[in-house]
Amino acid sequence: MRNIGLQLMYVGTAYHGWQIQKNAVSVEETLEKALEKVVGHPVKCTGAGRTDAGVHARTYVANFRTCSTIPCDRLPLAVNTRLPDDIVVTRAVEVSEDFNAIGSCRKKEYTYRIYNTRIRNAFFVNRAWFYPKRLDEQVMQRAADCFVGTHDFAAVKSVGTDTKTTVRTVYYFDIERQGDLIDCRVCANGFLYNMVRAMVGTVIYAAEGKFPPEAVSDILLGKCRTDAGPTAPPGGLYMTKLWYDEPGLTPEEME
Amino acid sequence: MRNIGLQLMYVGTAYHGWQIQKNAVSVEETLEKALEKVVGHPVKCTGAGRTDAGVHARTYVANFRTCSTIPCDRLPLAVNTRLPDDIVVTRAVEVSEDFNAIGSCRKKEYTYRIYNTRIRNAFFVNRAWFYPKRLDEQVMQRAADCFVGTHDFAAVKSVGTDTKTTVRTVYYFDIERQGDLIDCRVCANGFLYNMVRAMVGTVIYAAEGKFPPEAVSDILLGKCRTDAGPTAPPGGLYMTKLWYDEPGLTPEEME
Repeated sequence: MRNIGLQLMYVGTAYHGWQIQKNAVSVEETLEKALEKVVGHPVKCTGAGRTDAGVHARTYVANFRTCSTIPCDRLPLAVNTRLPDDIVVTRAVEVSEDFNAIGSCRKKEYTYRIYNTRIRNAFFVNRAWFYPKRLDEQVMQRAADCFVGTHDFAAVKSVGTDTKTTVRTVYYFDIERQGDLIDCRVCANGFLYNMVRAMVGTVIYAAEGKFPPEAVSDILLGKCRTDAGPTAPPGGLYMTKLWYDEPGLTPEEME
Repeated sequence: MRNIGLQLMYVGTAYHGWQIQKNAVSVEETLEKALEKVVGHPVKCTGAGRTDAGVHARTYVANFRTCSTIPCDRLPLAVNTRLPDDIVVTRAVEVSEDFNAIGSCRKKEYTYRIYNTRIRNAFFVNRAWFYPKRLDEQVMQRAADCFVGTHDFAAVKSVGTDTKTTVRTVYYFDIERQGDLIDCRVCANGFLYNMVRAMVGTVIYAAEGKFPPEAVSDILLGKCRTDAGPTAPPGGLYMTKLWYDEPGLTPEEME
């Protein structure tokens, strides 16, 4: 059986996240149905991670096994004609037998986008968090810096999925303003449930003066979810980069 | 009665254009219903022009008359809380008694956006025309140059609304590529029905080699719609600037 790695992008607004669920349309299910029509047999995809309902992916990676002989360079167009417009397969590559989109992923980057000006923008509905109160991105950056490094991130994990450990390593958490848009780019070796959205909510609480930005270090040490800020809404969140040792799945820069 | 000028923006995907129609939701109707709740009486808006179903406005201007004493600086937020997220009032100003959003408009700019690369982008669905075949923007510009000046534009007018004359003046028609996006910005003292979309279709036909770019001058002289290119789809079209003598309604730059 060939093992095929897919690079894709999707607008998450219409989907209840990546993972297959009962009574809700997921990206995984939609993709598998389209792949089945192309390869002629049932398909099970492994995705690079769960994304929540309404969360987007500028880059996402999945893999599946097939006995089909369709060439990888023809696969994206063949699948895309069978997919709705809000999911696009951008690349397909044959990967090694033991490659697994989630297990082989070395690190990931998410970008959280905030639209920060007094009047909302119709073109950013479900694409950025409209936050009308002016945020100081330098205060946000000081709070964000507290998350960088290896820490126990229990304070920014929602109740839900159990994991063996809540220790993760954050490589960077950069806050950048361009005009009315603030992009928060965070890269880690793994993310807990709702971790990025809770980190963004915490950074905003610091900018709001609810606590000093440096207090975020103590909040992490306390491991108590209610000490941190709220969970930011899903429409501002994008999976933007994924790193693999496997060639052909190199990260794309976010536009 | 006060005469109020409104600057607004909208994503046109969910609407059958600006103008009120039977059995279809229009931007005008949606705006008037929201305004009525704010000012407490029925409202009739005059818009800067018809836009077709699915066409967007980064800037649009309308005016309406009211006996309400609500201050103009409070009006946008009051109306926006009663509008769906895809329509936003960005500014309100008191204008002179004889101001009329369509009659007082000196010139308008539309921008037509093309997403020109082999694989489509999920984030540009209904926001740009996905055109997978590579277009040479320099050939497009040579064709576009033929439209600049005062001409009879009957060759790029769809059958529909009757107008006294089909002569208009195009001030500029600039084709600019940034990466995979091509923006076609066209400014004129007035536009005929579907004129921008037919001009874009014609410029693309020239880039496709269906006729030499300079032949567009002859096509205009021939006044025959079937000699020109096809009407480009509505999702790529944005109203982007409007010019008035009236202060407070100055054009905003397209992002």
